[in-house]
Amino acid sequence: MGKILIINPNSAQAVTEGIARAVAPLGPHFEAVGIAHGPATIASDEDVARGGLDVLEMARSRPDARAYITACFSDPGLDLLRAEGTKPAIGCQEAAILTALARADRFGIIALSERSIPRHLRKIRQMGVEARLAGELALPGVSAEASGRDEAVYGLVCARARELGDAGAGAIVLGCAGMAPIRARLERDTGLAIIDPVLAAAAIALGTILG
Amino acid sequence: MGKILIINPNSAQAVTEGIARAVAPLGPHFEAVGIAHGPATIASDEDVARGGLDVLEMARSRPDARAYITACFSDPGLDLLRAEGTKPAIGCQEAAILTALARADRFGIIALSERSIPRHLRKIRQMGVEARLAGELALPGVSAEASGRDEAVYGLVCARARELGDAGAGAIVLGCAGMAPIRARLERDTGLAIIDPVLAAAAIALGTILG
Amino acid sequence: MGKILIINPNSAQAVTEGIARAVAPLGPHFEAVGIAHGPATIASDEDVARGGLDVLEMARSRPDARAYITACFSDPGLDLLRAEGTKPAIGCQEAAILTALARADRFGIIALSERSIPRHLRKIRQMGVEARLAGELALPGVSAEASGRDEAVYGLVCARARELGDAGAGAIVLGCAGMAPIRARLERDTGLAIIDPVLAAAAIALGTILG
Amino acid sequence: MGKILIINPNSAQAVTEGIARAVAPLGPHFEAVGIAHGPATIASDEDVARGGLDVLEMARSRPDARAYITACFSDPGLDLLRAEGTKPAIGCQEAAILTALARADRFGIIALSERSIPRHLRKIRQMGVEARLAGELALPGVSAEASGRDEAVYGLVCARARELGDAGAGAIVLGCAGMAPIRARLERDTGLAIIDPVLAAAAIALGTILG
Amino acid sequence: MGKILIINPNSAQAVTEGIARAVAPLGPHFEAVGIAHGPATIASDEDVARGGLDVLEMARSRPDARAYITACFSDPGLDLLRAEGTKPAIGCQEAAILTALARADRFGIIALSERSIPRHLRKIRQMGVEARLAGELALPGVSAEASGRDEAVYGLVCARARELGDAGAGAIVLGCAGMAPIRARLERDTGLAIIDPVLAAAAIALGTILG
Amino acid sequence: MGKILIINPNSAQAVTEGIARAVAPLGPHFEAVGIAHGPATIASDEDVARGGLDVLEMARSRPDARAYITACFSDPGLDLLRAEGTKPAIGCQEAAILTALARADRFGIIALSERSIPRHLRKIRQMGVEARLAGELALPGVSAEASGRDEAVYGLVCARARELGDAGAGAIVLGCAGMAPIRARLERDTGLAIIDPVLAAAAIALGTILG
Repeated sequence: MGKILIINPNSAQAVTEGIARAVAPLGPHFEAVGIAHGPATIASDEDVARGGLDVLEMARSRPDARAYITACFSDPGLDLLRAEGTKPAIGCQEAAILTALARADRFGIIALSERSIPRHLRKIRQMGVEARLAGELALPGVSAEASGRDEAVYGLVCARARELGDAGAGAIVLGCAGMAPIRARLERDTGLAIIDPVLAAAAIALGTILG
Repeated sequence: MGKILIINPNSAQAVTEGIARAVAPLGPHFEAVGIAHGPATIASDEDVARGGLDVLEMARSRPDARAYITACFSDPGLDLLRAEGTKPAIGCQEAAILTALARADRFGIIALSERSIPRHLRKIRQMGVEARLAGELALPGVSAEASGRDEAVYGLVCARARELGDAGAGAIVLGCAGMAPIRARLERDTGLAIIDPVLAAAAIALGTILG
Repeated sequence: MGKILIINPNSAQAVTEGIARAVAPLGPHFEAVGIAHGPATIASDEDVARGGLDVLEMARSRPDARAYITACFSDPGLDLLRAEGTKPAIGCQEAAILTALARADRFGIIALSERSIPRHLRKIRQMGVEARLAGELALPGVSAEASGRDEAVYGLVCARARELGDAGAGAIVLGCAGMAPIRARLERDTGLAIIDPVLAAAAIALGTILG
Repeated sequence: MGKILIINPNSAQAVTEGIARAVAPLGPHFEAVGIAHGPATIASDEDVARGGLDVLEMARSRPDARAYITACFSDPGLDLLRAEGTKPAIGCQEAAILTALARADRFGIIALSERSIPRHLRKIRQMGVEARLAGELALPGVSAEASGRDEAVYGLVCARARELGDAGAGAIVLGCAGMAPIRARLERDTGLAIIDPVLAAAAIALGTILG
Repeated sequence: MGKILIINPNSAQAVTEGIARAVAPLGPHFEAVGIAHGPATIASDEDVARGGLDVLEMARSRPDARAYITACFSDPGLDLLRAEGTKPAIGCQEAAILTALARADRFGIIALSERSIPRHLRKIRQMGVEARLAGELALPGVSAEASGRDEAVYGLVCARARELGDAGAGAIVLGCAGMAPIRARLERDTGLAIIDPVLAAAAIALGTILG
Repeated sequence: MGKILIINPNSAQAVTEGIARAVAPLGPHFEAVGIAHGPATIASDEDVARGGLDVLEMARSRPDARAYITACFSDPGLDLLRAEGTKPAIGCQEAAILTALARADRFGIIALSERSIPRHLRKIRQMGVEARLAGELALPGVSAEASGRDEAVYGLVCARARELGDAGAGAIVLGCAGMAPIRARLERDTGLAIIDPVLAAAAIALGTILG
């Protein structure tokens, strides 16, 4: 029986392996793959556009999969996957925001970079859920790696989460996969629901194939 | 380790057992309970209000649970559970609609009764996602039991789903637990994503405790 | 001929009497009642849920009334009253916000507690009128009694009203019945329309029985 | 003590007198005046614009009034009155729609003419309450006079109200003053809340001067 | 062949001549006229209402025109022109905001006076485009003349534009005709799209008569 | 001095030439180019994604241009062009809808195919202007060529436009470049504002370089 294929649109194998480990607690239903010829990281809008075509091609090459997850916070290729057929295609930004809406009345996002905030706001408006956004804050000068591993950065992330909580957010979406390792700790320390995008997408996808 | 407690606010044990069977494929993480002194079915707004207090009391009596699901399409007690503490509290109507949004651009609902449609529309507006509703249609004169078991009714449900598809819905929420048995078949026959509320809530809840 | 029954969901007789005095200028059309077994004050979400059932029961015991007002800013039982029949059921939070919209382009709310603000925002979104909210500010550390009687607090309330005016509000809703005594003075001092919820509900209810 | 001045922007004295009679049950707080040099009826957008200036001039000539109501469903001059000062200025279309929102989850409008529907929709969008509109229907070929007095027309109005009720409206705004005489009967016959604009405005205005 | 008639609702001939010069680069398709008996400037809401009737009268006196532009940021008479017939009637505030939306995801406005901001927000809500507003800032104490000619004021305008850019605006609407002379320079200095209302209206109008 | 580069993302030279002719009345400011290796027509979502990268590459190869127009109703590459730099980048679907909003209160779209309607609705929601959409209708079975040249089809287009007018649309966007030749005639016959996307984009772009 086919698996849920989680497609990481970049070529960083460490990222792909991290994804596989992150979803392992949900059972043996997932396979994570990267794009060997993809960029080291998806940064620009052009990267997102090219990455979307890579994700589509990968999905076409794996008709055995039962569902697809596009595992980058920009959701590259999500519309292309949905136009391609009727198999479930789940985007991790969308899944994270929707899971936040299942947890609390309003949500916040912690982004890595100031520059990505306008793009996120556009997506939120496209999703039609802007009425429930409490706010979005960035971690300027913090790298993706440091965001989930550096103790000094952890304090900053905590402070940002609390600011968003004060602004009315009951659930916080982590806007960068790098923060996954601190999810559970941040949830305990802040009392807020903290949402990891890949895990949110994996859980929703699981419901589509096991039901 | 605690389980995800799925609280059925009525006293119909067959319904509670059906819920337990429905989520079993997701693993041994769930426990379904009913309310012994609850009504046979939640029908009126007063039933929903009283059911909400029953759900709250049940959750308080089970502090061992790691998360709670309110398993009735009216989401009784959901706000009370969230006000009570920080453990995940997932409503099955909310989870179903949000999962539909993770599957397609616009969604539809198939309700059992015409009378429940205004209540659903109010909830959708409260959720702030009305921009993505393609429509809602009812199955007048069909009982909850027949909705998932009667072959003649199946044809009607199929027709309703296709009407909603023609109106732009790419995902359809089943607005009555009785329809759960026909979910997968309906998905195959219509090519639309078909969402069962309890399953949707269970999958999202799973992501909150296994991540 | 029946009266408009104003139901105070708590057991504080002084509050019930204050309500009766407040609406007296509108004529002999009103009767204010409390809930003898209710809590001293409606504070938690659970209080609101239980209070709603008390309000419903009281209304059922008084079929002679021509209309009902639920006289607590959380509008407990409002949906239950409306589901019960076709007699007018007016909530004082709703009536206050709608009256503010009849007075000015955008409105503000002065709440007693920071904690109630998210609940008010949810109600405003449910009402579908969020586009006209200029802002909401709280009076942290101020008691309900002091809010309408303490001269030092009056200065704070004035300042809050002016801040909301600067943010674009032309009408201010007093989010706590305790502030009723300062309504007219605040209106004169700030030049803004100041709305008392019980009075707003009483006036709208009057139009439903005298027309 | 000053009164609430209800300004009818046309020169039809019978209409002005009808308004005075309609609000009499609310007490001796009102004075209705017409515009002697105004048109027989406010029909075109230009009539509305000119009528607005007439309403402003009348209000300026009556500084003794404590509040103003602009008594034509197009609310001529409402913004001008509000810009002029801080005395309450209530528009009857706005008041009717807001009162409908205080009575039910969604509302409908029965307009006299098809041509006025787009104008009403624009006003509703400007008010920011379009999420709660169930629909608007017209009575083509019916005159203002016949709309409230002709038995055959009454049947048509009833049918329209029921259609709007089936579309989800719990409250219906009468979009023409001519229908005032049938308000109470229509409410009894349909079980829906039926709102007369002038009465709705008068009740809200009363709350502003008696509180 | 008729021209596009740009109607300046005030009597300041220098303003009318400035408009004519500003649109000259678009070709010989325009004629700018003022209202000889109009006020020196349109300031109050009453000025806007009276100006609207003047604009309508002017348009009626010039049936040779192929399209009309109402050249004041309050768009006086725009609805009247549209109700009058089917010739294109373009408002410069509307055209400026819509052109900003054609240039960037979100827009800002630089207003001359704090007092005009609520009026602009009401218009934006009436237009139904509030989801794309990043913010609006004023230049308190700056005159219309100085806004486009004073070097010290230029620095302030630049700062305001950058603040709006930081808040997410990619395009800035100049809310006062006086700022037209600094449009191109401001665009170069800030890297943001800067929109002059009259020019925006003229370009859109041109497309309606040359297509 | 550079020109406004209109980029047709397909390889059909007749289409590119038609565009050049259509904008010629606006003056010698435009240059239309096609993508030699592009598809004969942009049909699928994948075509749009690949076309967007082609448009970006073409724009990069023509740094002499002063502004760019992406001349396909799906607006391929529009976000990429905007992310690339600060030169004006105008999409023809966006420009057409915005121009419709400058002409009338509500707008409609006539699409060639039923299948494209959901995609257009998504774009309209992303633009945040859904409150002003009166409706969208398709011309099933009609080819792009026939849509602007076949007399029998013209009758159908007229009927569709009138239906949208009856639904409240005052301006109609032609959702296919093929209909350009009938724009002016349709405007005369229906009394509605009829908007051609390429012309709308060209006019707005002109304002950005000549101001």
